[in-house]
Amino acid sequence: MKPSHIEHIGIAVTNLEDSIRLYEKVFGLKCYNIEEVKDQKVRTAFFMVGQTKIELLESTDPEGPISKFIENRGPGIHHIAFAVDYLDAELKHAEKEGVKLIDKNPRKGAEGLDIAFLHPRSTGGVLIELCEHKSE
Amino acid sequence: MKPSHIEHIGIAVTNLEDSIRLYEKVFGLKCYNIEEVKDQKVRTAFFMVGQTKIELLESTDPEGPISKFIENRGPGIHHIAFAVDYLDAELKHAEKEGVKLIDKNPRKGAEGLDIAFLHPRSTGGVLIELCEHKSE
Repeated sequence: MKPSHIEHIGIAVTNLEDSIRLYEKVFGLKCYNIEEVKDQKVRTAFFMVGQTKIELLESTDPEGPISKFIENRGPGIHHIAFAVDYLDAELKHAEKEGVKLIDKNPRKGAEGLDIAFLHPRSTGGVLIELCEHKSE
Repeated sequence: MKPSHIEHIGIAVTNLEDSIRLYEKVFGLKCYNIEEVKDQKVRTAFFMVGQTKIELLESTDPEGPISKFIENRGPGIHHIAFAVDYLDAELKHAEKEGVKLIDKNPRKGAEGLDIAFLHPRSTGGVLIELCEHKSE
């Protein structure tokens, strides 16, 4: 594997609009997209910082993963996503190296990207997402 | 404020050497620097992913902030750092916008950069560091 860049940083928030205001007002970032990802039970808001997106995640369901995360640990940084050229191959490589996969096969994430999550138990407590994002 | 990029992502680890092996073997990254930051009671290891560094943090003191973090939440993502052009001015701006500062004045961080932390209580539970890093 050789990720080309950090595709995004996912941040669990309790209120999307309040958090958008924070990132716009304090950090001078511009929210360029708000999108619901039904599969993950979240509404997301996106900002660009250099090569990397900040992805704010508000739960749409008290049983969803972001609700559970906030219940256990409070709002805060939820995951980081590496951009990789070939997701299928990288999942196979990670599994061969002993990493437990949450998603054995790619699925569609926000912004139409193919994504998969690795289990934090095998990556030192860090929830890592891989996003297919062919480098130019 | 307008951060130019994500300068680094700080990750709390229990064992630096084990974690270096993980990032090298699974993710194909190359550790290019190991450094002790006495002020923060950590040993750090650095990897580049595009514009952004991954900074692994191992505590050197059971009373240090990384030990406390791991005690409370387990190992995992600890903070994100935005690169800004003028740290002094940005700290004043953040404070004016109601952000509580951990560091009222810049101090020296890893790799000789001037840095300051914002309090997660005023940034939605996210520990945010600002690093002075003049854009070219």
